[in-house]
Amino acid sequence: MRSSGRRGSSARGAARRRRCAALLCALLVALASSAAGQPGACVTGASADGGVIDLTVPVQAGMPVWNGPSGLGRNWRALSEAHDQGDVVNKSFLYLDAHTGTHIDAPVHFLPGAGAMESLPLPALIGPADVVDVAADTNITAEVLEGAAIPRDAARLLFRTQNTRRALMGRSGFVTDFVGLDATAARWLAEQRPGVVLVGIDYLTIGAMYDIVETHKTLFRTGTVIVEGLNLTSVPAGRHHLTCLPLLLVGSDGSPARCILTRGDRGML
Amino acid sequence: MRSSGRRGSSARGAARRRRCAALLCALLVALASSAAGQPGACVTGASADGGVIDLTVPVQAGMPVWNGPSGLGRNWRALSEAHDQGDVVNKSFLYLDAHTGTHIDAPVHFLPGAGAMESLPLPALIGPADVVDVAADTNITAEVLEGAAIPRDAARLLFRTQNTRRALMGRSGFVTDFVGLDATAARWLAEQRPGVVLVGIDYLTIGAMYDIVETHKTLFRTGTVIVEGLNLTSVPAGRHHLTCLPLLLVGSDGSPARCILTRGDRGML
Repeated sequence: MRSSGRRGSSARGAARRRRCAALLCALLVALASSAAGQPGACVTGASADGGVIDLTVPVQAGMPVWNGPSGLGRNWRALSEAHDQGDVVNKSFLYLDAHTGTHIDAPVHFLPGAGAMESLPLPALIGPADVVDVAADTNITAEVLEGAAIPRDAARLLFRTQNTRRALMGRSGFVTDFVGLDATAARWLAEQRPGVVLVGIDYLTIGAMYDIVETHKTLFRTGTVIVEGLNLTSVPAGRHHLTCLPLLLVGSDGSPARCILTRGDRGML
Repeated sequence: MRSSGRRGSSARGAARRRRCAALLCALLVALASSAAGQPGACVTGASADGGVIDLTVPVQAGMPVWNGPSGLGRNWRALSEAHDQGDVVNKSFLYLDAHTGTHIDAPVHFLPGAGAMESLPLPALIGPADVVDVAADTNITAEVLEGAAIPRDAARLLFRTQNTRRALMGRSGFVTDFVGLDATAARWLAEQRPGVVLVGIDYLTIGAMYDIVETHKTLFRTGTVIVEGLNLTSVPAGRHHLTCLPLLLVGSDGSPARCILTRGDRGML
C-alpha cells in the first residue's frame, strides 16, 4: 500500500505538525479566553506546509466578524446528514457572510452597477507580491507609503501592520482602532504605483475607519483587487509568489478566499 | 490615472471577452432551456485568462446539484445590505451546501472520525497534474485505467469523460448515468500509481453510481484528495500545473473551491 511511500511519510509529518499546532493554539486560546472573558479564534503563525505559507484565517466559531462583538457564531455550518444519525455521509450546509474571514471584495461591494466576483481577472490574483511592514500604529497614509520603500515594479502589496502585532484576526471582538489605508494612500497608489493590481491587509477592511468608503471607491475605480482579513503572522517581508483564489460566486459583492504564498517568484512545484 | 496603463487595457480586454462569452452563453442557455423545458446553468469552455485556465463551474442559480431535479435555487445568495435600498454597500449572505459546484471532499465526508477540510495538505492541491481523456462512455474501471497510458510519475489526475462531452455540469437536472471511478479503479490507483495525491472529475461525484461509497472510502484511506464538479471543457489533455484551493472551513466535510490550470510545470508568473 502507498502509506510507505514518500507521500505517506511527508503527509503524516505534516498532519502531526498540524495537530501539535492546533493543540498549542487551543491551549493558548483557552488561557486568553479565561483572561479576557470572551471566546477566541485560533490564529497562530501562518502555517508553512511543504513550502506553502497559508495566509488564510480558519473559518470557525469565534473568528472576528465585521461589527460583531463576539465573533462568528456556532451556526455558520450545520450537518444536513450525519454519520452519528445513521447517514452514510457527513454533509455540511454553510451559512456565511460573503465577507467572512480572509476574503476578496468585488467592485459592486461599494460601486453600484460595478463588477461582481466573476469580473475579477485571475491574473491579478496570481503572481509576485511584496509583503510590506508598516511599523507605526498609525493608519497608512500617502506619507507612510512614501517612506515604505515600495518597489517601483510592485504588482501586489500585502500590508502587515499593527493589526498583526495585536493579533486582531485571532480576537473574537471587533475593534474600530484597526490600521487601514486612508484615501490619500489609495490615491498615492494610483498615481505613484500604477502597476499595482492587488492590495491586501491584515484586518477585516482595507480602509482606515474614517475613510472606508472613499478608500474602497478609489481602489475599485483604478481596478485594484482588494483582499482583506489576511493572516500575515510570521510571513517574512519581501517578495513572494501569491495565489489568492476566491470562489466563483456569480453576482456576489465578495467571497471568502484561500490565499497562499509560495517561495520566490517562480512559485512552488 | 492608471487606466491608460498596460493593466487597464488588458483588464478591459479580458472584461470585454468575459462579457461576450456571458452573452453568448446566455443565448445558448435560453435556446436550450426552451427546447428542454428546464432552466440551464451557463458553462462554456473553461475560460483562459492571461495564461490561466479556470476549471471552476460558476456558482449560480440553475447549476446542477446532487440529486436535485432543477439545479441550485435562486436563494443561494441574498443581499443583507443593498445600494438600491439606500445602503452604502451591497453585502451578500451565502446559503450553500459545502459540496456545491466545483468542490473538494474531506475524508470525514465518508469516513467517520476522519480529517476535515483543515486536514488537507496544501502541497497535494498544488503542482503538476495530468488531464486524462477517457474516451468511452463506460465507468472508469481498473481495466480502463490500465489502457489510459497514465504516466508512472503522475501526482494529480483529472479525468475528462463523457460527462464533459454531455456538458453535465452545465445542465440543471441531476443525472444518474454519469461516468465515475468504480472500486477497482480506486484500488488500481492505490497499487499501480502510489504517487497520485489528488484525483478530479467532471461531475458531482468521483464514484461510479454503483460504487460511490466504496470508491470514496478507498481513495480517502490512501490519503488521496478528491476534487469534483470540474469544468474540463476545452482543456488540452496532457500535463499542466494545477492549483485547486478550497476554503479553510474547520470541521467541514467539504468546501467549494477555485481550481485553475497554468501553463506547464512552472506555473504562470
